[in-house]
Amino acid sequence: VTSNAPIGIFDSGIGGLTVFSAIKKRLPNESLVYLGDTARVPYGTKSAETVVRYSRENAAFLEEKGVKAIVVACNTASAVALDDLRQRCRVPVLGVVEPGVRAALAASQAKRIGVIGTRATIASDAYGSMLCELHSDARVVSVACPLFVPLVEEGWLTGEIVEEITKRYCAEFEYARVDTLILGCTHYPLLKDAIAKVIGPNVTLVDSGEAAAVALKFLIDDEGIASTGTVADDRLFVTDVPGQFESVARRFLGGMMPTAKRVSLGS
Amino acid sequence: VTSNAPIGIFDSGIGGLTVFSAIKKRLPNESLVYLGDTARVPYGTKSAETVVRYSRENAAFLEEKGVKAIVVACNTASAVALDDLRQRCRVPVLGVVEPGVRAALAASQAKRIGVIGTRATIASDAYGSMLCELHSDARVVSVACPLFVPLVEEGWLTGEIVEEITKRYCAEFEYARVDTLILGCTHYPLLKDAIAKVIGPNVTLVDSGEAAAVALKFLIDDEGIASTGTVADDRLFVTDVPGQFESVARRFLGGMMPTAKRVSLGS
Repeated sequence: VTSNAPIGIFDSGIGGLTVFSAIKKRLPNESLVYLGDTARVPYGTKSAETVVRYSRENAAFLEEKGVKAIVVACNTASAVALDDLRQRCRVPVLGVVEPGVRAALAASQAKRIGVIGTRATIASDAYGSMLCELHSDARVVSVACPLFVPLVEEGWLTGEIVEEITKRYCAEFEYARVDTLILGCTHYPLLKDAIAKVIGPNVTLVDSGEAAAVALKFLIDDEGIASTGTVADDRLFVTDVPGQFESVARRFLGGMMPTAKRVSLGS
Repeated sequence: VTSNAPIGIFDSGIGGLTVFSAIKKRLPNESLVYLGDTARVPYGTKSAETVVRYSRENAAFLEEKGVKAIVVACNTASAVALDDLRQRCRVPVLGVVEPGVRAALAASQAKRIGVIGTRATIASDAYGSMLCELHSDARVVSVACPLFVPLVEEGWLTGEIVEEITKRYCAEFEYARVDTLILGCTHYPLLKDAIAKVIGPNVTLVDSGEAAAVALKFLIDDEGIASTGTVADDRLFVTDVPGQFESVARRFLGGMMPTAKRVSLGS
């Protein structure tokens, strides 16, 4: 592995582009290879066994591209496939769950922490169990928010509908008096303003993807594999090209849009 | 093919259970074999080529079960794979699009017809093009409603949030003065009351799955393959068992819940 090798990122779809963006911002000199498994999105509704199999294929694809590290941007895959990938891959593998958990514990004074995510992420209790593992007194309230992903994909990021839905999902956090809320889904950073407006200024919002970007910078510095180049060459791969792909991807990337190449995975 | 052979139904997931229910109601003596491709749901975000491939595998599975006819409950698959399946299958194949279109044309006086569906169904213009093909003066207004599926899966079928979302999606139908609205997605019948409340009593709602059940009855009578038995034996197959499966399936089936068996498809 050379330090000028790219960093690999994979996600079940295009939501992970928010993680891509966060990494881009923190590590502008690193070349990124992004793989969105759009043909098989979403992972959240699939069994752990299936998600592990898909994750192995994604990681193998990235290793073939010669990456020096792999970021699992997908919360579901981070929750169920990380240990397996770490055993199989020759390069360091980083998920989004642990960085999100550590950032939340650092931000929270009362250690009363809320978690939002897809139904699958919440059902897996990946955040909850790691929060309690790392801080045994932590009080965790988790709420699945299945309407948030389609809201983001619709581009309905402000206004009455988003607010009413957010109020409904976040009501529990007020009762539980959490002081920190983990955005445990790659799509949610686009709803950060709407969520902040509903939940108020006393709750710190922690973006797991953002936290993973920070953790990645530490990892790369620790391992001494930071890029010595100054020009990054990013590549974007998807396993299928859905109709709304470009417009949604552009929203995730804040306007920028590298060309995406379609590839086949699995048998 | 014997007349006591079962009828096969496939869908990309569990939404097609509304079609299963509609057929059950019209043809209580027929045995049904339902295949929900839950491992690969949704089809709507996938390319036509991929949807055709999955549909072939689903139809082959049903033919192996000895079905006498196949109903494609999935709107996406009905839109892109029906011709291909009709060429390949030894038994009659019925989609939901054409029955929905014919029912809407029969119901509409002004021939001003609205269509709602997933983003993929609307982008395919399957309903619009067939409406215009069968009635050249038809005026069609199509609106994609990506939030409706997660609303149904959340069980948020009444109340302010559903109403606000429905108002937003249905605003165009008022301007266009449609007198008939096609529910072009298997999930939408569960929102029928909410949609009726917003759109008012002057618009007739046409449920494509319901229309397909009526068309199936005609087909079976025409071909002389109606069951002579009186006890139906229904079987339910899925390609993966997602977390919320039972509770959502029960909602689609109005409380009843046959045991689902998991099967593997594809290579």
